[in-house]
Amino acid sequence: MKDKLKSFIENKYTSNFILLIIIFNSILLGLMTYPAVMAKCAQLLTVSCAVCVIIFTIEILIKLYVYGKNFFKDGWNNFDFILVAISWIPTGGAFSSFRAFRVLRALRALRLITRLQKLRIIVQAIIESIPNVGWASLLLLLIFYIFSIMGTTMFSEAFPDFFGTIGKSMYSLFQIMTLESWSMGIARPVIAVFPFAWLYFVSFILTSSFIVMNVIVGVVVNAIGELSEQNRKEQELKNIQNSTNLEVELNKLKEQISIVESLLKTGFRE
Amino acid sequence: MKDKLKSFIENKYTSNFILLIIIFNSILLGLMTYPAVMAKCAQLLTVSCAVCVIIFTIEILIKLYVYGKNFFKDGWNNFDFILVAISWIPTGGAFSSFRAFRVLRALRALRLITRLQKLRIIVQAIIESIPNVGWASLLLLLIFYIFSIMGTTMFSEAFPDFFGTIGKSMYSLFQIMTLESWSMGIARPVIAVFPFAWLYFVSFILTSSFIVMNVIVGVVVNAIGELSEQNRKEQELKNIQNSTNLEVELNKLKEQISIVESLLKTGFRE
Amino acid sequence: MKDKLKSFIENKYTSNFILLIIIFNSILLGLMTYPAVMAKCAQLLTVSCAVCVIIFTIEILIKLYVYGKNFFKDGWNNFDFILVAISWIPTGGAFSSFRAFRVLRALRALRLITRLQKLRIIVQAIIESIPNVGWASLLLLLIFYIFSIMGTTMFSEAFPDFFGTIGKSMYSLFQIMTLESWSMGIARPVIAVFPFAWLYFVSFILTSSFIVMNVIVGVVVNAIGELSEQNRKEQELKNIQNSTNLEVELNKLKEQISIVESLLKTGFRE
Amino acid sequence: MKDKLKSFIENKYTSNFILLIIIFNSILLGLMTYPAVMAKCAQLLTVSCAVCVIIFTIEILIKLYVYGKNFFKDGWNNFDFILVAISWIPTGGAFSSFRAFRVLRALRALRLITRLQKLRIIVQAIIESIPNVGWASLLLLLIFYIFSIMGTTMFSEAFPDFFGTIGKSMYSLFQIMTLESWSMGIARPVIAVFPFAWLYFVSFILTSSFIVMNVIVGVVVNAIGELSEQNRKEQELKNIQNSTNLEVELNKLKEQISIVESLLKTGFRE
Repeated sequence: MKDKLKSFIENKYTSNFILLIIIFNSILLGLMTYPAVMAKCAQLLTVSCAVCVIIFTIEILIKLYVYGKNFFKDGWNNFDFILVAISWIPTGGAFSSFRAFRVLRALRALRLITRLQKLRIIVQAIIESIPNVGWASLLLLLIFYIFSIMGTTMFSEAFPDFFGTIGKSMYSLFQIMTLESWSMGIARPVIAVFPFAWLYFVSFILTSSFIVMNVIVGVVVNAIGELSEQNRKEQELKNIQNSTNLEVELNKLKEQISIVESLLKTGFRE
Repeated sequence: MKDKLKSFIENKYTSNFILLIIIFNSILLGLMTYPAVMAKCAQLLTVSCAVCVIIFTIEILIKLYVYGKNFFKDGWNNFDFILVAISWIPTGGAFSSFRAFRVLRALRALRLITRLQKLRIIVQAIIESIPNVGWASLLLLLIFYIFSIMGTTMFSEAFPDFFGTIGKSMYSLFQIMTLESWSMGIARPVIAVFPFAWLYFVSFILTSSFIVMNVIVGVVVNAIGELSEQNRKEQELKNIQNSTNLEVELNKLKEQISIVESLLKTGFRE
Repeated sequence: MKDKLKSFIENKYTSNFILLIIIFNSILLGLMTYPAVMAKCAQLLTVSCAVCVIIFTIEILIKLYVYGKNFFKDGWNNFDFILVAISWIPTGGAFSSFRAFRVLRALRALRLITRLQKLRIIVQAIIESIPNVGWASLLLLLIFYIFSIMGTTMFSEAFPDFFGTIGKSMYSLFQIMTLESWSMGIARPVIAVFPFAWLYFVSFILTSSFIVMNVIVGVVVNAIGELSEQNRKEQELKNIQNSTNLEVELNKLKEQISIVESLLKTGFRE
Repeated sequence: MKDKLKSFIENKYTSNFILLIIIFNSILLGLMTYPAVMAKCAQLLTVSCAVCVIIFTIEILIKLYVYGKNFFKDGWNNFDFILVAISWIPTGGAFSSFRAFRVLRALRALRLITRLQKLRIIVQAIIESIPNVGWASLLLLLIFYIFSIMGTTMFSEAFPDFFGTIGKSMYSLFQIMTLESWSMGIARPVIAVFPFAWLYFVSFILTSSFIVMNVIVGVVVNAIGELSEQNRKEQELKNIQNSTNLEVELNKLKEQISIVESLLKTGFRE
């Protein structure tokens, strides 16, 4: 029974069928945002969507039964599990406080990543680059926190929208870091009130862009380092082979000379 | 006849003449946008432009006759063919519904790329980098689609201009990805209504910029990989030559020692 | 006494305790920006904050006593010293003209960098990349200065907000370099009055972005250069080892042949 | 006489004196933009400025006399010559039509680049990277031209400010390429009138950013290529040395064996 289910779930056709259902479900979720479409055939869409979720759930349940505890050892299985689980959070009726979770249904389209290996490789590459980025992010966060404390202390009264609280300041600083309307929208009005505020903004932009540049350079250098590491290993293998060949040749020479030596020794002894 | 036409069309002078006509035609197309110029000599410009198109058509026809089916095997020939074909789409009179195609006449200036090898190399390099970019673009599209569904679901009623339909949401997200007025123009008004929307915008910006960074790093690493691959092959050739030289030397040594050996053997046998 | 204090201050527990106090102090500084929190327990926060400063001061004093003059030889110690010293600048009462320094208290959170090695490495990497960036910055500054003189000369009367003085022009040029509202906010209004001003803005953007690109490329190439330098040294060590092995082998061969030679010489002499 | 002048002009002290005058002149040019300063001591500044120009002219004249035709063979000399020549264009009185040239006086500060070697190296690196960038720029220009013809044809009537003429369209496209207010400022109003215009803007942004990315990747790869080329040559020199050493050793072996051979031949002949 378990083996049958395993071969069924690992089947190419089953896999492609699930892939199709994921795409079909993604299209459904898109269609459901059009009021005109919903007015005509809301029931059809809702039912189709529910059927998709049920198929996904059955798939996950079979996998859970087949693989047991090993199911959760694979990161992508956990990813699928969470995405399907989100679909079962009740959002209507008595649970209207959970309505926000309905929006997360759209995340189900992300299951496409689990199904297409090429996408999985890209996502893994991005995730693997996070540790390198991690500490720089912490530094960036620290800079954000310090500048938001300073900004809130100085500007909160005059500009409550931009620097009212630590949170608002951090959002404004994020906007400034992306360079969006930093001067016309935020810095110039602030400088009009606090003439020395240009130092605050310019130093923040320089600091944050330096850290971001450092991160990007780090990621590029890391990727190139891995590439050259790979090349180096191939090269080394060839070098080892070459020097082995050379040793073999030299050993043959030595043997020849040993023969000559022994010939001489025996020759003269006679 | 065919050979004569072939030598004529592959002639340097013909080729340069066509190049000149392309440039002349491009200038004409530019002049035709000035109402003052058109008021004075509309007929002259229109006729000159038509003459250019006729010359291009004759060129293509000759090439079609000379190369036969092989004509369409070269991508650049197809490119030229389409650009010239567009010029013959009727846009006036009964075909006024095709008027939009008149705008595409400007694309004829792109034929310059086919004629200048350096430009062709750049365009080919860009086209060849697309497969590497392709899967990341699919991932980006998926992220766009998911965020546009979520955005439309949440904000379509309050902000029909930005998030009215999936299409409008995707356009807005493209704008947000380019960081243009994302905060002042879109995010801040939305956050004023939905306080938790900052999570939506910040997470989209971080996700999309991570993917874009991944793409750029990929392109850079790929280009460097090709470069070092090339270097490695040159290096290898030299290494092979070196080790061949060494082997030759070692073989000479072996021969010498063999002579010594045989000398000894014959010497002692005597 | 000195040794006891040294072992105490270099203790893991002391070090972690100081780290905790830095984090605690950072949170306090954040809380103090909320008027609601301050209204309730201003005294508690102020006292806690003062206690933190006192702990930091004691830490620095102990280190000063233990390490003596060597204390100032380490850049990070100086960094800590300045951050703690800033906290002691009187800002209330008769010293109200120093109130701006209160804002700098937030910088104390930067001490986290001294305490976490990973952050220290990133900051050092950024600081070490400055010399490479330095001369390009000087060039950028020169371009800024020249364009701000030209801008002030041409536009100061018509646009006193953007180009009123050299300082305002430089700030505007910084904004233009970040591409923030450069056209809609600054260039288009200016061009409406001075039609040829587009040349000024476009040439500034091209020049500054070329220099910035040069800087970034320089940083990337430098980082990769260091990486490959490291690889090269490892490679060289291996090559030296290989060629040493070869030499040893060849020397053995020589010795063997020398034996043959001497055998022959003595053999024939007999 | 010529030799004396040559040693005088190539003197360290003269060179540093000119450097000081350049910096002094740059400061003067800055001060002259302040109306308050000009009101007080306009005459002093104007005279000082004139003295600087005269010193520069004398320097150039001496160099012209000393080096003769060779003066113009060095690019930096031409650069200096032009910058000083600009200062002599009459701008007052009957020549008021040349007033715009007064602004170019600020360019004299660029002479600092000629004087500081580090800046000269950076500028040369940037200039040398232009050929690589050149053809891509031509491609970009072509794309600009085609899109500006299309834009002018379609939008000139409805949006004369943005797409009135080819020139205005090209400026707008440059703004769009820098992503400044491209959507809120230009695209959204246009799309409101021409719903399909989003295709025009999105395709332009994608095309132009692809070409720019290609350029940047090209510059990075080129710089790394030069670096690795340099490394490779050093490596090769070492390899050649190594293999030469090896050959010497092998030759010694051959000689030894030849001795053995000749010993044997003579030994057996006896």
